[in-house]
Order: sequence, then C-alpha cells, then structure tokens
Amino acid sequence: MVVTIVGLGLMGGSLALALRRHDDGPYLIGVVRNQARAEEAQSLDVVDEVTTDWRDAVARAHIVVLATPVRTLIRQIRQIGPHLQSDALVIDLGSTKTEICQALAQLPDHVQPIGGHPMCGKEVAGLVHAEATLYEGATFVLCPLERTAPWARELALDLVNRVGARPLILPPDLHDHLVATISHLPYLVAAALVGTTHQVGKQDPRVWQVAASGFRDTTRVASSDVKMMLDILLTNRAAVLDMLARYLEELNTLRSLLEEDNEGELRLYLASIKALRDAHFG
Amino acid sequence: MVVTIVGLGLMGGSLALALRRHDDGPYLIGVVRNQARAEEAQSLDVVDEVTTDWRDAVARAHIVVLATPVRTLIRQIRQIGPHLQSDALVIDLGSTKTEICQALAQLPDHVQPIGGHPMCGKEVAGLVHAEATLYEGATFVLCPLERTAPWARELALDLVNRVGARPLILPPDLHDHLVATISHLPYLVAAALVGTTHQVGKQDPRVWQVAASGFRDTTRVASSDVKMMLDILLTNRAAVLDMLARYLEELNTLRSLLEEDNEGELRLYLASIKALRDAHFG
Repeated sequence: MVVTIVGLGLMGGSLALALRRHDDGPYLIGVVRNQARAEEAQSLDVVDEVTTDWRDAVARAHIVVLATPVRTLIRQIRQIGPHLQSDALVIDLGSTKTEICQALAQLPDHVQPIGGHPMCGKEVAGLVHAEATLYEGATFVLCPLERTAPWARELALDLVNRVGARPLILPPDLHDHLVATISHLPYLVAAALVGTTHQVGKQDPRVWQVAASGFRDTTRVASSDVKMMLDILLTNRAAVLDMLARYLEELNTLRSLLEEDNEGELRLYLASIKALRDAHFG
Repeated sequence: MVVTIVGLGLMGGSLALALRRHDDGPYLIGVVRNQARAEEAQSLDVVDEVTTDWRDAVARAHIVVLATPVRTLIRQIRQIGPHLQSDALVIDLGSTKTEICQALAQLPDHVQPIGGHPMCGKEVAGLVHAEATLYEGATFVLCPLERTAPWARELALDLVNRVGARPLILPPDLHDHLVATISHLPYLVAAALVGTTHQVGKQDPRVWQVAASGFRDTTRVASSDVKMMLDILLTNRAAVLDMLARYLEELNTLRSLLEEDNEGELRLYLASIKALRDAHFG
C-alpha cells in the first residue's frame, strides 16, 4: 500500500509520523515544494521517500492525502485528477469542507474522494513542529460524497483509526457551520483582542507587561499561520459572518447587563457559562 | 516579623507557600472563614497558625495581606482599622485597585496601606490549587498611596521580591484601565464565546465534539470563579465598558473586511496581529 502525502507541514508531517509507528504501515511518499523542504523531510526521517514530482507521486498512490492550505488544496484537486490510478482514495485535511467537497466531486469517476478534517493542530506551523501523537484522541471529521463507495469509506475510517483519532461523519455544510463556531470565530475574537491591546499599548506599553497567562491563552490562536487562516476565512465566509453576528449579539447582551449594573442577571449568566465550560472541558 | 494573610485561597495560599520557602521567613498566621477551612489549611501545612479570629490575627501582625474577593476585601479594610497595630503594613491582592485604594486611604493614620495586584492566577480557585511558585516571574503591581511612607514601600517591595515576582508601580486608575484590557475584557470575550457555542449546541450538540485545544484555550478564563469575577467587573465597570466598546469597534472592523471580501487588507491586519502577539509571547 502506497500513501502519498501532498504537503509535509504540521498536519501532513504528523500524519506521516503517526502512520510510521506501525510495523505494517504503508509505504509513504511525501510531496514537497522544493529541494530545501525535501532535505528537511529527509533529515527528520518523516517518510520513506520525498519528492517534488507530484505527478509521479500521486500516480503511484493507493491513497492520496492532501495536506496543504485550503485554497492550494482546491487547486491541487483540479490538477491531480488525470494522474490518479483507478480506485485511488483521495482524502484532504482541509479546515473547511463545502468548497473542497465541491472540488472533490469533480474528480474522475474512477477515483474515490472523501473530505477530511482532523480537529487538532497548534498555533505553530511547519514540519519541525510535527508530532506522531498530534492526532491521538482528536475528533477527525469525514465528509463522504454521495459517490464515495462503502469500501472507500472503510479505508478512510481505517486511516483515521490508525493515527489514533476518532471519526465523526458530517455533511460539509454542517461541518463548516460547526467549525465556524468553535474555530474560526475564536480566531477572529482572539485577533481583535490583540488588536485592542495594541491600541491601548500605543498609549501605554506597560499593558503588555501586565498581560499574564490568561491573556496568553485567550489569544494563542491569533498566532496561527496567516495564509492558512486567510484561506479558511475566505472559503467559509458566510458561516463565519453568520457566527460573528451571533457572537456580537451575545457580547452585547453581556455589555447591557454590565451597563445596567444588573448584578443578579450577570451572576446567573456567568455561572451558567462556567458550568457549561466546566462540563465540556473540566 | 508576623505576617497575617486574610483568606487562604489560591492567591493567599500560594503567597504563604512562597514565603515559607525561606528559612528566615516571617511567622505566618492564616485567617479563614470556618473550621472546615482551618482544618484544610492545617492538613496542607500552609501557615504556622490558622485561625478564624481575624481581630486577634490582624492585631498581632506587622504585615496584613488581604487575599479575598474584591468586595469582601473592601468590607474587611473598613473592619480591620481599629484593630491594627501602629506602623502595620496593609497590602491587598485585589484584582481592581481604584475602589480598594479609596478604602485603604480611610485606614487610621498610624498604619501604612499599599495596594497590590499580582498578575498571576489560574482558572481554578481554592487552597488545594495553591503553589509555592505561582508568583515566580509574575508582574506584581503596587499602588502606593500618597501617605505611604518610603520604608513601607520598601517593605512591600521586599515582600514582592521574596515571592519571586517583579514589582511594577502604577496609579490605581491606570492599573484598572490596563487590566480591563488584558484580563477583564478577555474574560467577557471568552464567556460570550461559550455562550454562542451553547446556542449552536442547542441545535447540534456535536459542536462540543469538534471543539479542540484552540477553543479550550481561548475560553479557559470563562471557567474562572464567578464571585471573584463579578466583584472585579462591578468594581471596574467604567473601564471594562470602555474597553468593551473599543473591542466591539475592532471586531466590527474585522467583520467589515470579511464582508467586503477584502483579502489584501485582511491579510495585512492578520499578519500584523500575529507579529504583535509573537513579539510579546513568542
């Protein structure tokens, strides 16, 4: 079994490392952009073979994993079609799914496409941060297309299980709605916090000196890779804007309670929020 | 030297543990609310003596450290005055400073008050989470009053240094403005994120299943102790509302860029935010 991973960054690299833990693991080919990346991948011993020749690498694959930023990924799906072998499984790791699954649906009939999104990551990018355990225990969303054969779904599930993740089947638009809530919205919320602090810091830079672990954690995702996040926001614009509107409403409710000095309601609100978060992450 | 700590929660307990690391440390009296708390403090061996008799404990102290929630603290400042010995240093660990320093200013002339706020903490409360290293490397804001004698300021600085923190002298209103930015605003922002997710979760509870470490970190402070946060918000209402207004403006700017599909400006904004955060927390 040959698995070709296109893009050896944090996600693709960690997937390779996770698959290599098994003695009966597949033969892994990594596709990288240039010679410098190839040498990095070789020195870190991430895959069995590393190449810049994506045509050859996808032509030899039983499974192609696309692990690049969302809009790059959509371009690549269009390019690889003619080179894929019959019954090749094509799965992506992109963070939005509607546009990607539309592109996957255009692949030639003789291949098996399925959308994927592992719910793990870090605010740092690049192969150097890859870890064999990154996928361990993470929810891994799968978006089968109507045309995806049962055996291909099973093969995708097997891949998910092998890296230690927990599969969750969702339609692409529902996926995009849910991740707008818990990933894309938090990113914008954190970015705006850093932006507000920057404005205050222009008047008094000591604001950064008093910022402690609470601020650090609340804004962590604002350090995410910009290209990756821009692709995500622009391919999930409608859902993100919808969620931003709901969020602004929620924050304005809180603001009103504080404005009115409504201690009773404020206490009830904050206590229910704490109970909710503790229940899900306690 | 006798140091009486009123309130042995996370902050008071950690302060006691930090002071006890030194062989030449002061004699520590802890004031707690009831017998159950006294037994807990005794079994965790946090102080030399634990009592529920605050009158006696503050009467014997050279330094009184008030480590209770902000509004409790303001009540206690009013109560302890008549019981304090001459030249006793009174320092608090409250998270807002304007109202507290106003209360401290009303203490009898023969005592030395100074406001304090160590910029450390956790989202969990209680003595059981106290740590001797909690203050290590943290910024510890001091707000001396006009009447605070130079020797008393030195004594407060010595206390700050002993627990491993880094002192920063600020006027109370500036402190409250800065911490509204990097602590109270992030708390409300995180609470509203959990609130929005709850609304989405009522339609589809799988939203909690796809939430990963990014969401967990961005919302961590929403699990903070409600009584503590309510006291903070209500004693710093004007600064928090001002900062909320600035934040909503910032978030609306971001929203407009996304609405307009303004990729160029959005990239510039997000890249500058990432650079800022990496520079301060990288």
